[in-house]
Amino acid sequence: MRYQRPYGLHSSERTMGFDNVVHRLYLIFLAWILFTLHFRSASGERSTYIIHMDKSLMPKAFATHHHWYASTVDSLMTAASTTSIAVQSTPKLIYIYDHVLHGFSAVLSKGELEKLRRSTAGFVSAYSDSTVTLDTTHTLEFLKLNQISGLWPASDFGKDVIVGVIDTGVWPESASFKDDGMTQIPARWKGTCEEGQEFNSSMCNRKMIGARYFNKGVIAANPGVNLTMNSARDTQGHGTHTSSTAAGNYVEGASYFGYAKGTARGVAPGARVAMYKVLWDEGRYASDVLAGMDQAVADGVDVISISMGFDLVPLYKDPIAIASFAAMEKGVLVSSSAGNAGPSLGTLHNGIPWVLTVAAGTIDRSFAGTLTLGNGLTIRGWTMFPASALVQDLPLVYNKTLSACNSSALLSGAPYGVVICDKVGFIYEQLDQIAASKVGAAIIISDDPELFELGGVPWPVVVISPTYAKAVIDYAKTAHKPTATMKFQQTLLDTKPAPAVASYTSRGPSRSYPGILKPDVMAPGSLVLAAWIPNSEAAIIGSLSLSSDYNMISGTSMACPHASGVAALLRGAHPEWSVAAIRSAMVTTANPYDNTFNNIRDNGLSFEIASPLAMGAGQIDPNRALDPGLIYDATPQDYVNLLCSMNFTTKQILTITRSNTYTCSNPSPDLNYPSFIALYNNKSTAFVQKFQRTVTNVGDGASSYKAIVTAPKGSKVMVSPATLAFENKYEKLSYTLTIEYKSEKDGKVSFGSLTWIEDDGKHTVRSPIVVSQVVTPW
Amino acid sequence: MRYQRPYGLHSSERTMGFDNVVHRLYLIFLAWILFTLHFRSASGERSTYIIHMDKSLMPKAFATHHHWYASTVDSLMTAASTTSIAVQSTPKLIYIYDHVLHGFSAVLSKGELEKLRRSTAGFVSAYSDSTVTLDTTHTLEFLKLNQISGLWPASDFGKDVIVGVIDTGVWPESASFKDDGMTQIPARWKGTCEEGQEFNSSMCNRKMIGARYFNKGVIAANPGVNLTMNSARDTQGHGTHTSSTAAGNYVEGASYFGYAKGTARGVAPGARVAMYKVLWDEGRYASDVLAGMDQAVADGVDVISISMGFDLVPLYKDPIAIASFAAMEKGVLVSSSAGNAGPSLGTLHNGIPWVLTVAAGTIDRSFAGTLTLGNGLTIRGWTMFPASALVQDLPLVYNKTLSACNSSALLSGAPYGVVICDKVGFIYEQLDQIAASKVGAAIIISDDPELFELGGVPWPVVVISPTYAKAVIDYAKTAHKPTATMKFQQTLLDTKPAPAVASYTSRGPSRSYPGILKPDVMAPGSLVLAAWIPNSEAAIIGSLSLSSDYNMISGTSMACPHASGVAALLRGAHPEWSVAAIRSAMVTTANPYDNTFNNIRDNGLSFEIASPLAMGAGQIDPNRALDPGLIYDATPQDYVNLLCSMNFTTKQILTITRSNTYTCSNPSPDLNYPSFIALYNNKSTAFVQKFQRTVTNVGDGASSYKAIVTAPKGSKVMVSPATLAFENKYEKLSYTLTIEYKSEKDGKVSFGSLTWIEDDGKHTVRSPIVVSQVVTPW
Repeated sequence: MRYQRPYGLHSSERTMGFDNVVHRLYLIFLAWILFTLHFRSASGERSTYIIHMDKSLMPKAFATHHHWYASTVDSLMTAASTTSIAVQSTPKLIYIYDHVLHGFSAVLSKGELEKLRRSTAGFVSAYSDSTVTLDTTHTLEFLKLNQISGLWPASDFGKDVIVGVIDTGVWPESASFKDDGMTQIPARWKGTCEEGQEFNSSMCNRKMIGARYFNKGVIAANPGVNLTMNSARDTQGHGTHTSSTAAGNYVEGASYFGYAKGTARGVAPGARVAMYKVLWDEGRYASDVLAGMDQAVADGVDVISISMGFDLVPLYKDPIAIASFAAMEKGVLVSSSAGNAGPSLGTLHNGIPWVLTVAAGTIDRSFAGTLTLGNGLTIRGWTMFPASALVQDLPLVYNKTLSACNSSALLSGAPYGVVICDKVGFIYEQLDQIAASKVGAAIIISDDPELFELGGVPWPVVVISPTYAKAVIDYAKTAHKPTATMKFQQTLLDTKPAPAVASYTSRGPSRSYPGILKPDVMAPGSLVLAAWIPNSEAAIIGSLSLSSDYNMISGTSMACPHASGVAALLRGAHPEWSVAAIRSAMVTTANPYDNTFNNIRDNGLSFEIASPLAMGAGQIDPNRALDPGLIYDATPQDYVNLLCSMNFTTKQILTITRSNTYTCSNPSPDLNYPSFIALYNNKSTAFVQKFQRTVTNVGDGASSYKAIVTAPKGSKVMVSPATLAFENKYEKLSYTLTIEYKSEKDGKVSFGSLTWIEDDGKHTVRSPIVVSQVVTPW
Repeated sequence: MRYQRPYGLHSSERTMGFDNVVHRLYLIFLAWILFTLHFRSASGERSTYIIHMDKSLMPKAFATHHHWYASTVDSLMTAASTTSIAVQSTPKLIYIYDHVLHGFSAVLSKGELEKLRRSTAGFVSAYSDSTVTLDTTHTLEFLKLNQISGLWPASDFGKDVIVGVIDTGVWPESASFKDDGMTQIPARWKGTCEEGQEFNSSMCNRKMIGARYFNKGVIAANPGVNLTMNSARDTQGHGTHTSSTAAGNYVEGASYFGYAKGTARGVAPGARVAMYKVLWDEGRYASDVLAGMDQAVADGVDVISISMGFDLVPLYKDPIAIASFAAMEKGVLVSSSAGNAGPSLGTLHNGIPWVLTVAAGTIDRSFAGTLTLGNGLTIRGWTMFPASALVQDLPLVYNKTLSACNSSALLSGAPYGVVICDKVGFIYEQLDQIAASKVGAAIIISDDPELFELGGVPWPVVVISPTYAKAVIDYAKTAHKPTATMKFQQTLLDTKPAPAVASYTSRGPSRSYPGILKPDVMAPGSLVLAAWIPNSEAAIIGSLSLSSDYNMISGTSMACPHASGVAALLRGAHPEWSVAAIRSAMVTTANPYDNTFNNIRDNGLSFEIASPLAMGAGQIDPNRALDPGLIYDATPQDYVNLLCSMNFTTKQILTITRSNTYTCSNPSPDLNYPSFIALYNNKSTAFVQKFQRTVTNVGDGASSYKAIVTAPKGSKVMVSPATLAFENKYEKLSYTLTIEYKSEKDGKVSFGSLTWIEDDGKHTVRSPIVVSQVVTPW
């Protein structure tokens, strides 16, 4: 992972960058801190059970099913605490479920489970939470996609939806692109499987239905260039990874060298993939990107997934903005990545009003190694060493002349065993010296988040928290013959809190148009396992490179295809919806809470509560997006009205709209968007901004909604009317939202939300509200 | 594999040795030679299909179904050869099946398959031979055990049969000993799960129903000794491997670092395992072995599997001979390993008349790496490098100063790339120097069989046959920028010929009693994948040790539990059979032919046709053993009569028989054994040996058999009567077999067979016949 060519925008580049990260992601560090526990204290009589409940039998005393479930578990806790005072001896509510199933998960003893089973009205069934590690590349479980209910069955897993991926090409032989179980290609498909170098037309199938490549731009810019791979074949891995994430088929037994083992499959496993290779080892050109997107729309894709972006260009010079306008007109949703230039504000790209802009978050998964000392102390640390190294009862060495671990010469002279390395700040230098020294193994004491961002452990090393440093060093210094044993290749699931905003994910406001809140949503982006090209390094051991058919990489490039896959599923479930409707459904149902039921935190901002400028409305929630209740729709003309309000010339606008049939007769900066951003400048004393919105009832007939507002700090927010009463499905009602901002103008970002809650509680339609200092547009 | 502690008898030891081999096995070399083919020429339009036929519809023109199937494929060949002259463009018969299914496999084009489907009377169905690599640790498929028919369903997979394993203990946490799907433990079981160091009584379950340890002998011999692991827990891996081979449960996704990937399970997956640990890191004592066997019989095991043996001791001093006599009396079959002291004659141990003695053979599987040169030439070589090394278009280096590859100093100075190493004779020295030099990768030109015996490839190396040396070296010398690419972790199945007798397997005649032909049968023993202990080295990369839950090791220790598992299945299918009957069924149905339909060859004797002194009657054939037609039975008194004919004292005999109720009133050197061995000495001019045999009809009622004799070279063999007509089931009939030997007395071994063939062809009952020079008994 660490040694592969770094993608991403260099500060001196003014073109575009892929949006996966091989640097700067503080991803699982917080989760790791919380899960670095004594292995022994983790063992006990209790284990996790999933309890299904009959919600219709909820006693009237409870306001919500949350209360009901919590009270049910509380009642067990009271009983238990009379027999034991140990903290870990109390039953504990883990998750409340209300979409995939009605019920909850909890850590219980068998006795407590039995009591619950006997004494709780509404109890349906319970089973042990034991199989989750087997069938998973996990992000889909984390998003609660499941075979039984919600978006997967509703969309028939995306059957016949076509996802066009604009990227580096594809490895057609990957098991993720086998077409087992796929039906006939839809007759409307106009694409093709283009012949090229090491790529013949028979390499496409019912899963990978098309593959084209666009090299005229790169050749024009580099006359006489000899392309490394003049075909749709991927030479970089990026396109293989993103396309398999969006819509890969089921592949059992995938893993990253034993980590994250499980069944790999895409978000929309029934959807089709068409690859448009537009990026080359020899260069990345807007012309090729435009050509690819153009052809994708012509070929009849339903969703375009594009994990890259152009920085520092206004909308009318941004090929993705331009091409995606046409796509939008034709009902093709373009899902794009926000970029990896976070955590500073205003770094985001693809902040285009008519596309979906996706931020990256972490996953509830971590990778671990276990350290067991000769005295029995067992510590779970972090590692991604890519093999089952045998480190069994080796001598444990702590020696101040070595313990900086910054000299392979010194380390080579160490007695054979496990060397303890102090926290010194340059953990990659330590890893390199350790690997070069051929010391048996090492323990690095560190909380340096860089390692957890990058992975890359080239020698048997377990990284332990400084919390445990004293216990380990004391044992090494004082024991007669201190020894250490290590185990690798462990995967932890349900780590908390998750998701968190990835530190690297680029932040709004959008310099393409700051008046629309971007990003829209967040999706899993950190250490995502997906298909890879087998002829590229995926890990190293010492000086040896290893390959893998599946790789774990990080970035908004990985988040984007998750959102693309969800959009494809929504397209399948709601073929009648516009692009704006699909995006609205994803935004208004996104989840701003993590798996501890607290606000999602921002790893890039010292774990503060994340702002919508980092994560949009929150983590995508596919099953809820299936049935959003209300949608904020928008027509092509609406976007034109927005363009007309910008400081663009007619020709600049036409560059995007292509057609004179649109008029600028009704310019408006206020697009019917499912979120709100008010921008202040230092000069304004106080300001008031008024937004006009129209919502369409896509629920079942008559319904009534009430507005619940959480005002950003320092702001007053008014909604009028505060109640919306629909009589029919597809009825539209309008309201205004007014933000009065009077607070300090020192660059602070404040945020809140407007939530329309249906009277029966069935639908909640949430829009984030942000007040931010204005940024200079590109 | 290579670096683990070598088991086995050292020439100076006079005690006993485990019967797995980590040296001397020429196992898959011949198979490899035949399968080292140009990858490109292997690709084509044809693939392998399995064709099921209705045997009852065979046209009368054909004498046998073999002819019918061959003719069917021939007819396609004639048609095909009119359109193409290329050799690989002809359809090809692969296998004829008559037990698992009626039919055959063949390499056909889709058109040929279609023609066969349409034009062949008796065609039932056909399917592609594509899934065989997935569901297999393979030896069981090689033995044709299957869910549908034969011994597995007939015995309910060995349900409720208990296999006692006398060994180094067990790793109870191994997935192979999970009890998923196992029913209640039989009430008759009297064993226990003995507490001990790192082993508590809850570690047994419905699969591993008992575990005991016997340390009094080792402690008595080493007063004050501190046992490394004073419990039934395995510290060596051997017992975990053998017990999981005999009766391990199903474990998906097992592999040896990506090689031999598939579902691991034992020969009798429904049987129970009880472990008797009698071997210690601190020593191996007969007293402990006897105690373990004694207890196993007392506990109620049905089969004892013992993969070790005592050398240089007469029967009355051989603890296995002694303990197994009592076991035999109680109907407990003892299955034992022949030893790894081959290929010299007279090296065998456990040549005990009342046990089953098992030789080791190779498997139809090989492990491969692919070498692709920059000019497109692709060569499949041999490797077991335990990781997915990335060797992609690296410079190819052939340099006479380096190419002996016997100096890491010189190799370290080589340009980074793939170094070609000449055949010099010390391949392990080359591997060590290559690994120490950190050269990118290497090609070793070699046909040194030692490597294919031992495995152990610590650096990315592919071994290619000298056949390809010139092509590779010429390219390296003459190309402008020669490059090489390598792929690892490939597993080849259906390699031919297989089985072959493993070179290491010990040979008869038995010095325990030369008058009984030993070994009895051969079973798969080379590079067998089974469970392993996770805290022991299973492979290395450079200087790093790797662990694995499954390991691939070789020896008669691995063959023995295969036979034990088959015996357990037979015990389950025929609870009424005596130990002699079970053994007889295995011997008379064993297969002397390999998968090319030729006589099995002996890897230890320059690939000559293997003698029964190497493999007994041949490879065990479990499904045929279920229904042998006739059996050669023997009672305890029959064995006593044999003992009485030996030059033993009454007390020596009593040591074995334990009971004075046996009499020596009827001494006889001629046991009713299912095989024949006549021994000459240099003094005898010509000799005649007469054997008396009685066979019991275990077929369905009346049946008639004719004797077919293949006389050993230089001998005349007479059988009287030559026809046996049974009227009832369980009827016994006798015959005499007389061998007249007149040929040279120079130590030559000659061999043939007697086969009783039922008139309807349903049963064939084959006994090997050997004429050999006499050996000095122990």
